[in-house]
Amino acid sequence: MKYIKQSVMVLAATVFLVSAFKANDNVGKGSPKEENIPAAKKYWPNGAQLVISVSMQFETGGQPEGAESPFSNTPLPKGQPDLPAESWYRYGGNEGIYRMLDVWKKYNIKVTSHVVGTAAEKYPEIAKAIANGGHEIAAHGISWDNQWNKNYNEELQFVKQGVDAVKKITGQKAVGYNCNWLRRSPNTLKVLQDLGFLYHIDDLSHDEPFITKVKGKNFVVIPYTLRNNDIVNIEGKHWSPDQFLAQLKFEFDRLYEEGATKRRMMSISFHDRIGGTPAMVHAMEEFIKYTKEKQGVVFMRKDDIAKMVMNDPDTPVDNSEAIFNN
Amino acid sequence: MKYIKQSVMVLAATVFLVSAFKANDNVGKGSPKEENIPAAKKYWPNGAQLVISVSMQFETGGQPEGAESPFSNTPLPKGQPDLPAESWYRYGGNEGIYRMLDVWKKYNIKVTSHVVGTAAEKYPEIAKAIANGGHEIAAHGISWDNQWNKNYNEELQFVKQGVDAVKKITGQKAVGYNCNWLRRSPNTLKVLQDLGFLYHIDDLSHDEPFITKVKGKNFVVIPYTLRNNDIVNIEGKHWSPDQFLAQLKFEFDRLYEEGATKRRMMSISFHDRIGGTPAMVHAMEEFIKYTKEKQGVVFMRKDDIAKMVMNDPDTPVDNSEAIFNN
Amino acid sequence: MKYIKQSVMVLAATVFLVSAFKANDNVGKGSPKEENIPAAKKYWPNGAQLVISVSMQFETGGQPEGAESPFSNTPLPKGQPDLPAESWYRYGGNEGIYRMLDVWKKYNIKVTSHVVGTAAEKYPEIAKAIANGGHEIAAHGISWDNQWNKNYNEELQFVKQGVDAVKKITGQKAVGYNCNWLRRSPNTLKVLQDLGFLYHIDDLSHDEPFITKVKGKNFVVIPYTLRNNDIVNIEGKHWSPDQFLAQLKFEFDRLYEEGATKRRMMSISFHDRIGGTPAMVHAMEEFIKYTKEKQGVVFMRKDDIAKMVMNDPDTPVDNSEAIFNN
Amino acid sequence: MKYIKQSVMVLAATVFLVSAFKANDNVGKGSPKEENIPAAKKYWPNGAQLVISVSMQFETGGQPEGAESPFSNTPLPKGQPDLPAESWYRYGGNEGIYRMLDVWKKYNIKVTSHVVGTAAEKYPEIAKAIANGGHEIAAHGISWDNQWNKNYNEELQFVKQGVDAVKKITGQKAVGYNCNWLRRSPNTLKVLQDLGFLYHIDDLSHDEPFITKVKGKNFVVIPYTLRNNDIVNIEGKHWSPDQFLAQLKFEFDRLYEEGATKRRMMSISFHDRIGGTPAMVHAMEEFIKYTKEKQGVVFMRKDDIAKMVMNDPDTPVDNSEAIFNN
Repeated sequence: MKYIKQSVMVLAATVFLVSAFKANDNVGKGSPKEENIPAAKKYWPNGAQLVISVSMQFETGGQPEGAESPFSNTPLPKGQPDLPAESWYRYGGNEGIYRMLDVWKKYNIKVTSHVVGTAAEKYPEIAKAIANGGHEIAAHGISWDNQWNKNYNEELQFVKQGVDAVKKITGQKAVGYNCNWLRRSPNTLKVLQDLGFLYHIDDLSHDEPFITKVKGKNFVVIPYTLRNNDIVNIEGKHWSPDQFLAQLKFEFDRLYEEGATKRRMMSISFHDRIGGTPAMVHAMEEFIKYTKEKQGVVFMRKDDIAKMVMNDPDTPVDNSEAIFNN
Repeated sequence: MKYIKQSVMVLAATVFLVSAFKANDNVGKGSPKEENIPAAKKYWPNGAQLVISVSMQFETGGQPEGAESPFSNTPLPKGQPDLPAESWYRYGGNEGIYRMLDVWKKYNIKVTSHVVGTAAEKYPEIAKAIANGGHEIAAHGISWDNQWNKNYNEELQFVKQGVDAVKKITGQKAVGYNCNWLRRSPNTLKVLQDLGFLYHIDDLSHDEPFITKVKGKNFVVIPYTLRNNDIVNIEGKHWSPDQFLAQLKFEFDRLYEEGATKRRMMSISFHDRIGGTPAMVHAMEEFIKYTKEKQGVVFMRKDDIAKMVMNDPDTPVDNSEAIFNN
Repeated sequence: MKYIKQSVMVLAATVFLVSAFKANDNVGKGSPKEENIPAAKKYWPNGAQLVISVSMQFETGGQPEGAESPFSNTPLPKGQPDLPAESWYRYGGNEGIYRMLDVWKKYNIKVTSHVVGTAAEKYPEIAKAIANGGHEIAAHGISWDNQWNKNYNEELQFVKQGVDAVKKITGQKAVGYNCNWLRRSPNTLKVLQDLGFLYHIDDLSHDEPFITKVKGKNFVVIPYTLRNNDIVNIEGKHWSPDQFLAQLKFEFDRLYEEGATKRRMMSISFHDRIGGTPAMVHAMEEFIKYTKEKQGVVFMRKDDIAKMVMNDPDTPVDNSEAIFNN
Repeated sequence: MKYIKQSVMVLAATVFLVSAFKANDNVGKGSPKEENIPAAKKYWPNGAQLVISVSMQFETGGQPEGAESPFSNTPLPKGQPDLPAESWYRYGGNEGIYRMLDVWKKYNIKVTSHVVGTAAEKYPEIAKAIANGGHEIAAHGISWDNQWNKNYNEELQFVKQGVDAVKKITGQKAVGYNCNWLRRSPNTLKVLQDLGFLYHIDDLSHDEPFITKVKGKNFVVIPYTLRNNDIVNIEGKHWSPDQFLAQLKFEFDRLYEEGATKRRMMSISFHDRIGGTPAMVHAMEEFIKYTKEKQGVVFMRKDDIAKMVMNDPDTPVDNSEAIFNN
């Protein structure tokens, strides 16, 4: 039953994506020498040369006291409200998500939004706005908390509560997962499989999606990124937004070229309060325009990618973590 | 009485600003296709598409022993004078403020200067020069000290002494407030309202001014910035001035575009000893020139903004901190 | 015997390099005024104006628990697997080395690969791919571990085991050495000489290879770099790849110019999981193209350099560490 | 006697500088509209619009065990030689100083070299090469050590030994001083005056030289810089050399413009092992070329500046540290 249902979804996704690909194609330079027909052999089921997937983390409102902020290096005594830090977080809800939604809409891009359960409960209208924009609602835990140190049952509850809370608000049941700071426990993939997830993203080992076997069944890994990640580079490495834009372009140039001879995927990550600032959204828009100069670039939600590759024989299998997943 | 007086001031401010706007308009590209008349619907009372407000912190001379400087990471024993660090601070008074005043004058820009009381007492001629340049004198505490840990009466005295000390020197009574490192106590807004302030800036949650209710009455919040802030980016994140300029341009590009469909404001912050260096003032001048290529960009003092938006029904209300302000 | 064999190798290397030089020459701007004949006096045995040597460290799979990664600043309890960190390392094996091999092949560049013994044992197919690409297999210890604190015998075993393990897989016996974080013990050069090595790279004191006497015999030092080093600049200094490219160009511009009047060498270092990312390989490719605009630029393996300079009377001798090497 | 001698030196310096200025002038754009005659009123005795002074610190060989290096964040046990760190320092002697001397010579620039006594003793040929290039030999202490914590006699000996050691090697008696990390003791200026010094540079408070009274007599302060300082920006802030170049240009653009209406000076600091790398010297050369596009830019030694301004009535007096200098 499950496989049949998936196949139908894969088919539907493919149809959608092929049409998205065609729409994108028309944005190309339009030189009469450049044909709108994809090259004979492409490495994605949809014939794209490069698939780009954006993660838009919605976490604001879910942060614990003392959560990482521009003020957290000089923490206040426990119980003392850190008012500017809280206002910094609220920015993600007031401005950040909506600004990003605007740019995704302008360019008809669908992204994957990793939603912390308590963030959606605090700002249900934001969670709904994301879902209503046609974006994927993926899970990110019920709260902003370590996951690697939970036992199996605790972890299952932690994930399930997050899925349920967000589904109640948005109507979407998550099939993709992102752990707090990527730090899975050894049980995480089993937990996810038990809860009906199709994929997770907390892996940095490839530039393309792959299959890993969990209790013998296919589970998709869509690689995440630290390289094109706003929190890592802007808050952690102290890059300016023009550096972030340069990074995106360099990364794109190489992956696009490689896409001519193998399956390649580019992952980008934006968090509400960081990637949602004016300068970062401007950088992203400049990047989107840059990608439009090439043929065969497709922006996709991660659930659509997962469905597309899960049963594709060209998808590589990597069981590096078999010790935990048998 | 208070409201009547405020209305007159709002009117006066509007007249001033409309004329400032017109003056700015003439600086536009002057293409015959670009009209000098603002579009039918703009989102500021003065018809501007984007309001930019610069904060110029004057703190030098008020710094305590061991205050943050390029030398403070390797502190000297208590009581040992840190002579190069002190000379680094004096730069703000000798060169920094005057250099910035020159550039504001050249481009007819009025800024808001947050003045530490003891800094004005140490360098009264600088405080007077700022006031005489037509800039707003705003309050920043009597001294360079934590405010979040004071009780109500201590805090009221701390703020009032600062206002009085600076008024005695400049003749201007502050109506706007900026806390040390933005760190308000839960009582700060009540303290400010009791002392007749119109607005504060220690909030990062919006890209436009808003109203918050304090004991039932309107109090204006003019958002501050860490993004376009010299101390955060130059001293904290170790950006070079060309990165700072790139950030300003990226931020401007996005906010200006958004200004066509909603009210938007851009905040920039310069501190005497950091933003007042030659390279940073050069970056700022390049940025000012960049903004002149667009229609409807207005640089404003924050008190003028506060008066303009306080009774404007289009100004949003945000009571996120109602728990502290009732 | 040894010297005769070496002389033959020097001869062979020279022939190879002169032909490489000629091939490179044809890539020059081709203006009729620019002659393809090297200037009368050049400072390398092969007549090049600048020799560039790339180090490609292959370490992934050899890292100990808690090894430096984007996650190691917040370490997990001992024994808890750090799954995203492990996946970050696997990237070097899955993507990084192969991507770099592609670009070396495209431009017919031969590099020196410093291979950790346990990395080669974990990924023998990668070690073989490097060797099969015509690159030098150099030694980097049997495992990823401190070397400066070992006694003579321990150190000799540590180095020898690494050489033997990699030779068994690749068929190449290393003649060049790179210590963990460059940190040699006072005995390292004697150990290396005893094991038949020709050169080491853990020295930053010159921009050209030199001879140092070890127990009275010539030992070559090929200077390494922190300046053009991916791990130092990208992970340590938090540069973006466009900064790395700018650094390479600035460095090249100066060294190339100096190469007209003295022997100059440029060293570049890439590690599997860092230099092997798309943006960094793009930066490297842009740099390679940039060097092609000049005459007489030759990319060389370090063993070929060592053989070329070891018995060249123009090679400088520096015995700064004589106290340890007598 | 002393004053007469000084006057003669001032005269001589002026003659030298006027001729240097003229020589520089010819490098200008040469448009027929641009006259080679300085504007009617300039603010330097020599009619220049901007004076630039480079400090070239020669410290290598004088560093203590564990001195700041790319390796010092992970220190080795006391007594264990840190071989790569030592080789990093030797670079300053082997390559750095000579490379900088080449570029100063190419553009006929005379700089001020702050020489640590033990560095000159270790590398006398380098100290001589600097002096023979026509550069100023200034003092930097007998060794690389804290000065702020010495008592009057200790400090006097520390300074005097440095002067004597370097004079013995170079024949030049220093008249200018630079403390370790700029950290003077309260007695430093008295010590320097007692030893016949004319100026010190450990002050960041102005963008022009000034007079401070020491025991009633004029003492010159030539402002130093952290802004255009290689060790602060490259090693401390982790800038890439292209950022350093951008900083120099921004700084220059503003100070040059200000030089039309007041006396302005730009200070740049390069250390042997940091500023002497190929990429940094390339950045410096690009900057020098950039300054040549303007009229009236003069590079000067600091002793020449000190002599020029010491008895000039236009030189400002700043007695901010009077409490220590009476």
